Amino acid sequence: MVATDIATRVWNHTFKLDTIVRSLLDTDFYKLLMLQMVHGLHPDVQATFSLHNRSRQVKLAEIIDEQELRDHLDHARSLSFTKREMIWLAGNSFYGTRQIFRPDFLEWLQHFRLPEYELRRVDGQFELDFHGPWTHTMMWEIPALAIINELRSRAAMKDFKRFELDVLYARAKAKMWEKVERLQALPDLRISDFGTRRRHSFLWQRWCVEALKEGLGDRLIGSSNVLLAMETDLEAIGTNAHELPMVLSALAEGDEELRQAPYQVFRQWQSYYGGNLLIVLPDTYGTSAFLRQAPPWLSSWTGFRPDSAPPIEGGEEIIAWWKRMGEDPREKLLVFSDGMDADTIERTYRHFEGRVRMSFGWGTNLTNDFRGVSPVPTSGLDPISVVCKVTDVNGRPAVKLSDNPAKASGDPQAVARYRRVFGEAAYAERALAV
Amino acid sequence: MVATDIATRVWNHTFKLDTIVRSLLDTDFYKLLMLQMVHGLHPDVQATFSLHNRSRQVKLAEIIDEQELRDHLDHARSLSFTKREMIWLAGNSFYGTRQIFRPDFLEWLQHFRLPEYELRRVDGQFELDFHGPWTHTMMWEIPALAIINELRSRAAMKDFKRFELDVLYARAKAKMWEKVERLQALPDLRISDFGTRRRHSFLWQRWCVEALKEGLGDRLIGSSNVLLAMETDLEAIGTNAHELPMVLSALAEGDEELRQAPYQVFRQWQSYYGGNLLIVLPDTYGTSAFLRQAPPWLSSWTGFRPDSAPPIEGGEEIIAWWKRMGEDPREKLLVFSDGMDADTIERTYRHFEGRVRMSFGWGTNLTNDFRGVSPVPTSGLDPISVVCKVTDVNGRPAVKLSDNPAKASGDPQAVARYRRVFGEAAYAERALAV
Repeated sequence: MVATDIATRVWNHTFKLDTIVRSLLDTDFYKLLMLQMVHGLHPDVQATFSLHNRSRQVKLAEIIDEQELRDHLDHARSLSFTKREMIWLAGNSFYGTRQIFRPDFLEWLQHFRLPEYELRRVDGQFELDFHGPWTHTMMWEIPALAIINELRSRAAMKDFKRFELDVLYARAKAKMWEKVERLQALPDLRISDFGTRRRHSFLWQRWCVEALKEGLGDRLIGSSNVLLAMETDLEAIGTNAHELPMVLSALAEGDEELRQAPYQVFRQWQSYYGGNLLIVLPDTYGTSAFLRQAPPWLSSWTGFRPDSAPPIEGGEEIIAWWKRMGEDPREKLLVFSDGMDADTIERTYRHFEGRVRMSFGWGTNLTNDFRGVSPVPTSGLDPISVVCKVTDVNGRPAVKLSDNPAKASGDPQAVARYRRVFGEAAYAERALAV
Repeated sequence: MVATDIATRVWNHTFKLDTIVRSLLDTDFYKLLMLQMVHGLHPDVQATFSLHNRSRQVKLAEIIDEQELRDHLDHARSLSFTKREMIWLAGNSFYGTRQIFRPDFLEWLQHFRLPEYELRRVDGQFELDFHGPWTHTMMWEIPALAIINELRSRAAMKDFKRFELDVLYARAKAKMWEKVERLQALPDLRISDFGTRRRHSFLWQRWCVEALKEGLGDRLIGSSNVLLAMETDLEAIGTNAHELPMVLSALAEGDEELRQAPYQVFRQWQSYYGGNLLIVLPDTYGTSAFLRQAPPWLSSWTGFRPDSAPPIEGGEEIIAWWKRMGEDPREKLLVFSDGMDADTIERTYRHFEGRVRMSFGWGTNLTNDFRGVSPVPTSGLDPISVVCKVTDVNGRPAVKLSDNPAKASGDPQAVARYRRVFGEAAYAERALAV
């Protein structure tokens, strides 16, 4: 008996589109943590987020159909948090803290919708901007990127035959599992999925997370994806991102206030969160500059997330600072999250083993590593370096310098001013594969 | 909407067993061709078929549950040819011949059921014998082997976790596709699936056949599996097997009649079939002996299937014979079917390219190559050399010598007599991987 549920088939036929983002929880957890603080302390700031494809050679607007992109963005705008999502956010403990989200914030959140977008095609690229209150535009970053990346994957596979697709995913699974087997050799590994924004597809990310859960057991500490954390019974993982110092720096009056802005961010953060959420992201304007001026109270925080320095050099620099501050690095945490893959995780783990606590955020190379696996020759499945960054704050340019000059962003004049204030990057430029 | 067809789920729950052989067409095509001749010319011969596991180190009776084996054998006995199967057999053209199966044979076939079996456990192995009329016992060979092999696979995977299974099949698919890509480089390849008896499982064989169909296009000329040929719209492929000369030799009175028996078989075959079905299987008692005594009329047949000699040496020996007989080998066909895999297919193809027509029957290494792909260390998925051979004909022992002494079978005294009549093997013994 081959039974087809006729109602299901007909229902499927009526789909207007095969949705990519189906829930507002399909985003990174740190967005919600930051949102609560932004909602509480900066409700009136206007911030523009803009898509930027650093992989210029990939002409996204020639690959992805504009109407299809609009359909998916429009669909995301139709979403609101569902009852059970709100209950899960309210009732769950995050990092052992109950009710991390305050009732007034959740009350506001349940009416949240994604704001409008502006989409144009320029020179084969999409110009995609989100204007409006920071509390709303910031929430576009992850869904916009997930939509762009998955539409690009779909375009690349459009003409694949049945077994070409089957073999593609078979090889991708085999490739992923090789990495799992390598990581199984690291007994005290703590790793989480950070791959939502650049994922090949939602279903593939889910496969990867569930495979990691089986293959790594307790070594998988969670997923940054709130929806997947809920659905697969994992911890939601994340703290804060560059947009906080970028916005506060843009709002600063004069060079001295600008110089203090990156620390001011963490003072505000501390007023909202404690414990494992006290993770310093030091590289917005360069880690060396950050540490030079860092106030002593930051050394009592749980850890640092070096996100653009080479992991070993960046980690050593932070450990040296902790020692200068009289802290024991073995009680501190380093969170590595910049372009990590099995080999860099192994190397970094072995290098710091026993000297510092570590955790790893595994992003693009976890959820979008289809390099070399396609049975049909194509570069369309290689990941690209596409970001969605805050570019304008109350009419002023937002700037990021980072430890990797290739990751700097912002108006050139403003970048020059920030370089003057914070100093030049201490690390050499490295190519951005992902 | 996640829709579960409740009726289907409940129906599935009621399954007594997850069947392996679900159709009497799930057998090799040559069985049906031989059966028609046996039914016509030898309806009264009693022939015992017996399971023989040449891979003695694998204790099948310690791996496979006896009751489960009985359940599957019993299930196979409950099958008869269905209406649409009979229609397909009657209405299809095979090798361009319409109505290859005669109406009286088909009339008889629609009442066919598999006969009883005798099962015992001895020293960790199963003794599995089928006694009765040749017309019935011969039909057990393929389903019995398929059941044994699939039960062994299932036992090996019984404790695999979800993603271990997923990765196992992902790697097996990737491994298979590497072979497809290698074979795509052989422009005039003609290949067919011969992998029913030793398959990992029915579903895996179907995957392999469908993948080959997409990946090799017209280079895949068909499948020996009649059910898969019907379901996947391919040609059913096959001609005859060793049981024909083995039975007729066992029936021979005296050494001279024995010496003629292997040719007598093909005279009978010719009275039933023509064209592409005129394929000589020369190795039952050694190819060299066969060719030494072969009557000239055999040189007009379409081709030879060297099934136990090393393919290049065996092919050269046959080509030399054709030349001695005044035939042009470029108009002749060699069918290679003994333990072939991508590398031996490539080598054989390159060796004979332009000198003879070739086709390849790809068996165990197509449908059961899980070596090195399991994420859980196990040898339980490596193929074994298990056969089901005629052992007794009207109370006399049946003997096979073959071109590979490791494949010889039969009562030792009878083997010695056959060696005296036909001569010693011309080829060295080679290990039987599959």
